[in-house]
Amino acid sequence: MEPVKLSEKFGKFSDHWAPKVIAEMNDYQFKLVKVEGEFVWHAHDDTDETFIVLDGELTIEFRDKSVTLRKGEMIVVPKGVEHKPSAQNECRIMIIEPKGVTNTGNAGGGLTADNDVWI
Amino acid sequence: MEPVKLSEKFGKFSDHWAPKVIAEMNDYQFKLVKVEGEFVWHAHDDTDETFIVLDGELTIEFRDKSVTLRKGEMIVVPKGVEHKPSAQNECRIMIIEPKGVTNTGNAGGGLTADNDVWI
Repeated sequence: MEPVKLSEKFGKFSDHWAPKVIAEMNDYQFKLVKVEGEFVWHAHDDTDETFIVLDGELTIEFRDKSVTLRKGEMIVVPKGVEHKPSAQNECRIMIIEPKGVTNTGNAGGGLTADNDVWI
Repeated sequence: MEPVKLSEKFGKFSDHWAPKVIAEMNDYQFKLVKVEGEFVWHAHDDTDETFIVLDGELTIEFRDKSVTLRKGEMIVVPKGVEHKPSAQNECRIMIIEPKGVTNTGNAGGGLTADNDVWI
């Protein structure tokens, strides 16, 4: 039960769209992700998903609108809602969601990544 | 489904140890809290509890050690583990835990606060 320094964890990887699990709470996981460029349209049919922007700017497109989140902003994407994250420049985010959730949700494809556990 | 700006929410209250619910994900809540001074020893018998320090310095005493978390650091306190948060100077934190959790856990007392919902 040690404090987790987020910047220290971010210093240990450079790949994009590949979540690193850095803490667990009950059956939920906290994941750090570096993102840049376009992700894929997808939804998570069984769970809400929380994004917190820790540095940079993250855009999330929905079918009816688009939102841009900056450092210190968060959003909860409700379950089943299609979304497409993207970032013009590298952006650091935290994702919080139940264990077992895959980044590409119901879409699959080449950007699907394991949830590497870095606890 | 709008972005939540954490600094904007923090600007709307000044009381200490009184959590404001600013987002919900499934049956979990995200709470912002300003803390200063000493809290009470307590535990949450049924759930882990996550603290993220957004500004300032938070100390959490456990029965066998003490940890200090600074901006950009987090810790998950396992369920049932007694802890006592404190902050010498005002500190801004986010707490993430299931709906219905009370700040003073199994201890009760005068610092027990409702979870005001500010969504």
